Amino acid sequence: MELEARVPLVPPFPTTEFHDRVERMRRAMRIHELDAVLLTSEANVEYLSGFWTLFAWNSLSRPWYFVLPLDEEPIGVIPEFGESNWRNTSWVERLVVWPSPRPEDEGISLLVDIFRGLRRRFGRIGAELGPETRLGMPVADFLRLSAEIRPLQMVDATAAFRQVRQIKSPAEVERVATICRIADEAFAALPSYFVAGESERALAQKFQADLILRGAEKTPYVAMSSGLNGYLSGSTWPGDRVIAQGDVVIIDTGSRLGGYFCDFNRNFAVGRVSDEVRRAQAALVAAASAGIAAARPGTTMSELFHIQLAALESRGMSCGPVGRFGHGLGKLMTEWPSIKSDDCSVLLAGMIITIEPSVLLSSGRPMLHEEDIVITSDGCRVLTRRAEPELLVLSA
Amino acid sequence: MELEARVPLVPPFPTTEFHDRVERMRRAMRIHELDAVLLTSEANVEYLSGFWTLFAWNSLSRPWYFVLPLDEEPIGVIPEFGESNWRNTSWVERLVVWPSPRPEDEGISLLVDIFRGLRRRFGRIGAELGPETRLGMPVADFLRLSAEIRPLQMVDATAAFRQVRQIKSPAEVERVATICRIADEAFAALPSYFVAGESERALAQKFQADLILRGAEKTPYVAMSSGLNGYLSGSTWPGDRVIAQGDVVIIDTGSRLGGYFCDFNRNFAVGRVSDEVRRAQAALVAAASAGIAAARPGTTMSELFHIQLAALESRGMSCGPVGRFGHGLGKLMTEWPSIKSDDCSVLLAGMIITIEPSVLLSSGRPMLHEEDIVITSDGCRVLTRRAEPELLVLSA
Repeated sequence: MELEARVPLVPPFPTTEFHDRVERMRRAMRIHELDAVLLTSEANVEYLSGFWTLFAWNSLSRPWYFVLPLDEEPIGVIPEFGESNWRNTSWVERLVVWPSPRPEDEGISLLVDIFRGLRRRFGRIGAELGPETRLGMPVADFLRLSAEIRPLQMVDATAAFRQVRQIKSPAEVERVATICRIADEAFAALPSYFVAGESERALAQKFQADLILRGAEKTPYVAMSSGLNGYLSGSTWPGDRVIAQGDVVIIDTGSRLGGYFCDFNRNFAVGRVSDEVRRAQAALVAAASAGIAAARPGTTMSELFHIQLAALESRGMSCGPVGRFGHGLGKLMTEWPSIKSDDCSVLLAGMIITIEPSVLLSSGRPMLHEEDIVITSDGCRVLTRRAEPELLVLSA
Repeated sequence: MELEARVPLVPPFPTTEFHDRVERMRRAMRIHELDAVLLTSEANVEYLSGFWTLFAWNSLSRPWYFVLPLDEEPIGVIPEFGESNWRNTSWVERLVVWPSPRPEDEGISLLVDIFRGLRRRFGRIGAELGPETRLGMPVADFLRLSAEIRPLQMVDATAAFRQVRQIKSPAEVERVATICRIADEAFAALPSYFVAGESERALAQKFQADLILRGAEKTPYVAMSSGLNGYLSGSTWPGDRVIAQGDVVIIDTGSRLGGYFCDFNRNFAVGRVSDEVRRAQAALVAAASAGIAAARPGTTMSELFHIQLAALESRGMSCGPVGRFGHGLGKLMTEWPSIKSDDCSVLLAGMIITIEPSVLLSSGRPMLHEEDIVITSDGCRVLTRRAEPELLVLSA
C-alpha cells in the first residue's frame, strides 16, 4: 500500500497570544482571590505555557507542573530531561527542574519553596480540583504539598480556568475549524473504501488512518457502532460485528490538531434502512438546525436544550440517553458547559460548543447527531460541513 | 489512495482471568488491610472489571467508578447512559447508575452509601493516590467522599495495585507480544514510504497510519526527532524539520492493542551518519543485550541499571538524560518499576519491562534504544524483534 501524508499548515501561536491568556487568567485570579495557580494537566499547561510535549501526557511516571503567580514571573517545574523540549516550545523562561523519577520527592519540595516564597495577598493557591478536571499528579503528593504550605491554602480554581478557557481567540477557532475540515473530508471519503462484509473494526481502522494521513495529529476518539434499528451505543469502540445491509452506522470522532479538538459524528445507511431510522436522522438534523439558529450570546444552555427537545418531540421522537444535547469543545473533546435542561450558563461570543441532539428509537436503541459551532457577536458560525437530513449511503 | 486494514485476532479474556485477578487483588487487600478498593482510572477499571469503553476515558465530563470490596460482590458505579456498554463488556453484574452530567452529585452519594454499607474489618478503603497513578475523578469530589464516609478512611492502595498488575498472565503477555509484532512490522516497512525532503511530521503521519492499518487500536505515542549528531530529544512530537542526508532519526511508539501497550523505538540513518552516531547505536544495542542477558527473577532494578551503564561506559559512552534505563509496561506505556540506580525492586516471573539505555553524545544530544521483554521462570523472552548494532537505513 502506498501511503501519502498531507501536513496542514498550523501557524504557531504568537507570544502575544500567551500574554493575553495570562492577563485574562490573572484577571480571573483576582476575582477568585488566588495568589497563584498550579497547573498539572495537558490542557491547562499547554494553554498557558505553550509547552508542547508528547511524552509528559503519555506517562504517569513523572508529573509536570506550571505555576502562574498573580504578579510574578511564571515558572515551569519539570523533570530535568524535559528541559530542552521546554526551551524549544514555551515562551516561559523561568524553569526549575529535578532529576526524575524520584518518587520520594517528585518536584514537591520545589513547589513548596516556590509557594512559600510568593508575595501573599489572599493566602490561596488555585488548583484543578473541580468539575470536569483531573489532577495531573498523585493525590498523595497533592495532600503533602497542601500540608507543607500551610497556612497557604490550596483551593479549587475550576471556575477561573473555565471562565478563561471557554472564550476562544481567533487563532484557537482557526485550529478547531481546521480539524473540523479534516474530519469533514474524512467522512466524505469513507464510502470510497467501505467494503461489504467488513467489520466495524476494519472500517474504523481505515477511517482513523485516513484522518491521520489528512493531518490529524491524533485521533484518540473514533467511536463506531452499527445495527438494524439504531446502534448499540453512540460512544463505543468499534467491534467485531460485520456491518450488514440495512444497518445504520454511527462514526464519531474527537480528533486533534495543534492541541485543539473537533467532536462530531456522521450517520451512514448501508443500503436501505428502516423508515424510523430515516425519520430519526431527519429529526436530529432539524433539532440541530433549531439549536444552531438559537445559538447566540445570551442564550442559556437550558434554552438550547429545550429548543432541541421541542424539535425532536414535534417529529414524534423521544429524548436520547446522553444526558445533555451538546457541550463545550476546544483543548479537550468535552469541556464545560453542558447543554442540559437545568443549566443556566449563558453563551458568550468566542465559545465553541457542540450541538448534539440524540433520540431513543422504538427498539430502545439510540441515534445521535453532532455539529460544532463557534458563537459570534450576533449568532454563530458552523465549523462543520452540515449533515443532510438524509443519511449518507454506504453501498455494498 | 486505497486503504486496507488488517484486524488482528485478540482472543477475549475468559471470565476466569478476571476472577483470578480479583482473587490476587483481594489477597493484596488483606495484606494492605483494605475493606475495599475504589478504581477510577482506565487501566485499573479495565483490568478488574473488563469494562471496555472508549468514551469514558476521552471525556472528563463524567467520572466512572468500580468498587471491589474484600468479601462482597464487586460493583460498577457509572453514568446511566453507559449501562448497555457495561452489560455488553463487563463480567460484573452489580451495577449502580446515576443520570450524568450532574456536577453537584456526580456519583458521590452512591459511593458514600456503598462504603457505609460495607462489612468493616480494617476501616480502610484503598484508592489510586500514590506514585505513577492519577485519580480519575475531581479531587474536590474525592475530598468530599473522604469526609462523608468517616470514620472509614481513604488510603493509598498503589502498592497493592502495583503488586497485582505487574505480574502479567499468559493472555496479557500475548497481547503485548502482538502489539510489539505489529510495531516491528511497521518499523520494517518505514523505509518503503520514506520520501527524501519530507518533514518529520509527514513521515510520522504515515508511520502512525500504518500502525493503525496493521491493527493497533490506538497510537497515542509516536515520537520523532532528527538531527545530524543525535536528535533533539527522544520523546517529542514530530516537528516541521525536514529530514536531511546524514541525519539520525528516532521513531518511538507506544501503541495499544486490546488494552495493552508496546513501547520501543528504532533509530534510522539517512544515508551515511557520523562515526560517533554509529558507535552510539552499537553501544546502545550492546547495553540492551547486557540488560537482557541479566534479566531474570531476582535481578534488581539497580543491577539492571549498572549492567547497562557499564556496557555503555566500556564503549566510551556517557549516561543519557532519561533518569532511568527502562520501566514496567502493560496496561500503560510506562508502569512501575523504574530501572534506576537506587531502586531495589526485584524482577519476578511474569513482569514485562522495557530495557532502554540512553547516551549523551559529544554534541550534548541524546540517543536511546529500547526493547520490550517478559521475565520467565529462568530468564526472559524478548517480545520485540531485536535491533541490529547497525542503524536502519533510510535512503533518499
